[in-house]
Amino acid sequence: MATFMDVHSGFVGVTAEELAAAHAADLQIEAEESVHFEKAWLDPESGKAFCLSTGPSKEAVMHVHERAGHPTAEIYELSIQI
Amino acid sequence: MATFMDVHSGFVGVTAEELAAAHAADLQIEAEESVHFEKAWLDPESGKAFCLSTGPSKEAVMHVHERAGHPTAEIYELSIQI
Repeated sequence: MATFMDVHSGFVGVTAEELAAAHAADLQIEAEESVHFEKAWLDPESGKAFCLSTGPSKEAVMHVHERAGHPTAEIYELSIQI
Repeated sequence: MATFMDVHSGFVGVTAEELAAAHAADLQIEAEESVHFEKAWLDPESGKAFCLSTGPSKEAVMHVHERAGHPTAEIYELSIQI
């Protein structure tokens, strides 16, 4: 399993409740893709969101987000971490 | 204290040892700015690095990175997290 960070833009004004609902939608289906979303952070002023996950591939992570209704094309495989 | 994610570009081919050295340089001076760098992740293929920190302001976080020799202008205040 690898670690990934994906980035979403355009989430300006999104609330904690809305982020929680989006995250819950990921969690509900992630096992079908062998992905786990560990953490999500949001800056509602700029609209940037960051999701930290583990999974078999970028494509698997992106597919979960797409199926859950919040696709993104910006994702990085984090092979080094401290 | 607020939570921040800052993003660096251009770290293509940086090794785990080099990231550890950069992170150590931050840790050595962060207390002077009331900042704490909790975690750093790197994708050495794209050269993107993400640093998660807590501190009093974006400026304080950026100032630590600048003093440690790896400035970035891309930083987000993460007022919502899951």
